[in-house]
This record gives sequence, C-alpha cells and structure tokens, in this order.
Amino acid sequence: MDRFAVDDIPYNEDLRTPVIDQIVKHTSVRDFDSSKPLPEGVVTVLVAAAQSASTSSNFQTYSIVQVSDPERKRRLGELCGHSFFDQAPLVLVFCADTYRIRWVTERRGFPFKFDYVDLLLVASMDSALACQNAAMAAESLGLGCVMIGNIRNRAKEVSELLELPEGVFATIGLVLGYPSRQNPVKPRLPQSTVLHRERYSTETLEQDLARYDERMARTDVYEGRRVQVPGLTPEPEQDTGPYGWSEHTARRMAAGNLLRRGFAEFLREKGFTLG
Amino acid sequence: MDRFAVDDIPYNEDLRTPVIDQIVKHTSVRDFDSSKPLPEGVVTVLVAAAQSASTSSNFQTYSIVQVSDPERKRRLGELCGHSFFDQAPLVLVFCADTYRIRWVTERRGFPFKFDYVDLLLVASMDSALACQNAAMAAESLGLGCVMIGNIRNRAKEVSELLELPEGVFATIGLVLGYPSRQNPVKPRLPQSTVLHRERYSTETLEQDLARYDERMARTDVYEGRRVQVPGLTPEPEQDTGPYGWSEHTARRMAAGNLLRRGFAEFLREKGFTLG
Repeated sequence: MDRFAVDDIPYNEDLRTPVIDQIVKHTSVRDFDSSKPLPEGVVTVLVAAAQSASTSSNFQTYSIVQVSDPERKRRLGELCGHSFFDQAPLVLVFCADTYRIRWVTERRGFPFKFDYVDLLLVASMDSALACQNAAMAAESLGLGCVMIGNIRNRAKEVSELLELPEGVFATIGLVLGYPSRQNPVKPRLPQSTVLHRERYSTETLEQDLARYDERMARTDVYEGRRVQVPGLTPEPEQDTGPYGWSEHTARRMAAGNLLRRGFAEFLREKGFTLG
Repeated sequence: MDRFAVDDIPYNEDLRTPVIDQIVKHTSVRDFDSSKPLPEGVVTVLVAAAQSASTSSNFQTYSIVQVSDPERKRRLGELCGHSFFDQAPLVLVFCADTYRIRWVTERRGFPFKFDYVDLLLVASMDSALACQNAAMAAESLGLGCVMIGNIRNRAKEVSELLELPEGVFATIGLVLGYPSRQNPVKPRLPQSTVLHRERYSTETLEQDLARYDERMARTDVYEGRRVQVPGLTPEPEQDTGPYGWSEHTARRMAAGNLLRRGFAEFLREKGFTLG
C-alpha cells in the first residue's frame, strides 16, 4: 500500500517512476535490526545525496554530524527521549550551519549584514532539504529511518554533546538502520486541504478534516497515545470518545512543548538574530 | 556527470539505486520550453510525493498553492525578480502553514500553547521536506525545476497575491516545466567540510575552502555575476582578481538582502511568535 492507495488518490498511471514509487511508500522506521551492520561506504553516498539537494543561493548553510559511537548515540537518544537510538547503527544529525558563512565573511574582510530572522529560515530549510534527500537515498538502499525533531528539545545539551560552535544548531536527527519492523504508510490530509488552486482556500477544510479524522481514527496510530492535558481533557479512564487527527493535534497544541519554550533564548545565545 | 563525478567522490558502486542516480544528477533549471505542456495529472502526483515526506509529528504544517494562471504567474515572477516564470507552465508555492492547526485547536475548544519560535521552524522545515520530494518526483518525470527563495523578498505582496491567511507564508517557490537548457551539476563543498564525525570539527575548513574556491573559480558560475558592495569591493573594471565561493558568499553576506530586513515584522503580523 503506497500513498496513492492509502489516501485513495486517483492518478495517471503513466506518471510512475522508480523515484516516485520509492517516495510514495515512505514510512518512518523506529525498530531496527541491531545485528545487521550498514554497508561499507553508505555515509558517503547519503551525504552525496544530501549535498545534491537544492540549497539557498549555494550558501550550503547546513552540516551533518555522523554519530556512530555507541555511548554518544545512547546519550543523544536519551536527550531526544527515544530508546531506539541504541538499536540503530547510525544517526546523522542535520544542523543549520551559519558558522561557515560567518567565517568566510570575516576571513575575506567583509562585515556580516545577513543578520536577520530570514537567515534562520534559510539555514533550517537548507538542512531539511538535505535531510529529505538523504532519507530517500537511504530508503532506496533498503534502510529504514526516522526524522527526530526532538533533537531540539534539549538543544543546549545536544549542542554541547556534538560540540556545535556559534551559529550552528541541530534541526533534525536522522536515525538509520535496517528495519526490523515496517509501519504501514500513514494517511495524510486530503490533497484538497493541502493544495490550493491559484489562491489559498479554506472552502473544503471542515469537511476534509471530518473525513481525515474518521480515517485516522480507524488506524491504530493513536492507540495508547492519547494526549492528556491536565484540566482540559477527560481522565484517562473516561477518555474513550472519538479521537482523530484534529483532536490529537489540538491537544498537542494545548499541551505545548515546554522543552522548546526556551528555544528563542538558546538561538540568541548561539548567535542567531530573531529580529 | 553526477555529484560523485563532479565532486570526485570515491564511492561503493554497489550502493547505486535508481533513486540515488536521480538525486545525484540534480541541477536547477531556469530555462523552460514554454511550448511543451505538462502531462495530465502531474500536480496530483507531485503533491502525493510532497505529502509522503516526513512531517513533524504528522502536524503537516505546510500548504501548496498551485499557480498556473499566466497573469498571476507573471506577477509572482515579478515579485521574485525572475522573468523565467513566464516560460514555465507551473509554479508550486510551498508555504509554512499554521492556520490549520490553529483552526482545529480553536474548533476543539483548546487554548493554543505551541506559540514560540520553534513552530516557525517546524512549519518552514515541513514545507522544505515536502518541496524536496516534489522536486525529485518532478525530475524523475523529465521535468526541470528550481526552488525560489526570493519568494520571501516581497513577502507581503506575495501573501496578498495568493490570499494567504494568518499563520501562513510562502517559503519556497518551485518553478516547473520541461527544460529547454540543462545546467551542469554544480560542485558542492567537500564532504569533509559538511560531514563531521562524532562532533563538529573545523580542522579541514581552511584547506577545504581553498580547494572549493579554486574549483568554483574554474566553472562559469560567477561569470557576469560578481557581487558589488559599494565602498567594499573594487570598481567593476578593476574587479578581476580570483573569485570563488568564499569571495562570492562573503560579498553576498556583506550586501545583505534589504528586502528581507522587514521579514521579522512581516512574520509577527502574520501571527508568528519569534520569542
């Protein structure tokens, strides 16, 4: 079952390619076969894929820290709150990196005037573009992976662990290995929700979300994973009503992520301008 | 010539797949054959690819605005400062979208507490991950494309043109069509610059950049594209010294991008919290 089948999307069958076949069967893998080592030279190939992604103005404002050392990997998993790091042979930590462009600017004797919030977006998005290519390359080699945004939860400790200098912070952890269990492809929002023709429209939003909620409620995605927000959600034993994407997402938004509350301060300490 | 050949990267030949082959031959296309229409149903397939990308916590905080109308496309190109929009049959404008998650949170009666700078990163990176997949899918179909960060230059006008609501802004414009001219694969920084083992290292930075500068100077990438910074760079007729990535990037950083100076204010107006 790929994206087209799972989301029941009618499509032109002439438009299938091996690349599209691979992309539309993506699922995140969190269960790794720790007994199966990675093929020789795989990091070189994944980095070549990452570097082939588009990058804003060829600035290449990202870096990748390869973490294979078991103790460092375990500690990184701990900081992200995920025990499966232990089972995976490799974590590639994608970072927004403005250290390099600051360094060359200083070296060439110029003042650094690219100092506003857009640079944070440029570097973060550069790292994401590179990461997506690495993930697709990995999956094409039969590897499984999952992107970890929790790498930003304890940003300061991650930064210290990986010795990230001024102007650099971890955006996404890509955990890699041979899968020991595959998840089914997860349904996504209807195309009519995400795709807008000529201008943004919310016309179908309400009915789309009702349909998506119903579909997601039929999966086991939220089983044992209902979000509790003290004072706002029913006690666990009473919490048995319908629960789809809207309810889950709304509860996540109500709970917030306390660990990222201080992220702005962390970024400023790291030399980013948010103004 | 693909990434491995262009950047002279020795690699394990067992690790080639059709996906990797496609990824490592990526080049940006800015010259489109305007006489060649896109295949029927291509947007459906590209959106399916985009939606198959990883997305933070399945929040799916991005939207895509399809711009095919010639007049709107021309105007969008004008706002980005690129005339080639006219030749391309399609622009997909990727947007960071927090409208939807705010809407469901309100609808389900919860307070929105995910209100800090990290949400800006979540949404921007979600849009980038989706965009990279769409680009790879497009290239596998023989289409060419280029990502346009200049879509953020005149963010307010773009927002008005596409009627983007509160919580939504355009991050990347993906311009698509059949190529009328292919660029060679652009050299990237050496892997030793971008890839760090176990912890960030600047050990090879200086020598890596010298090597990369020399390689980039040998391409015609900067021909007629030297950046002038009044008072800081030689007059154009005197500006004939060596000019590689470092010099070009340093000058770009010294010039800044005045159009993005007000981006923080724009984001705040759009309902984003930068703190």
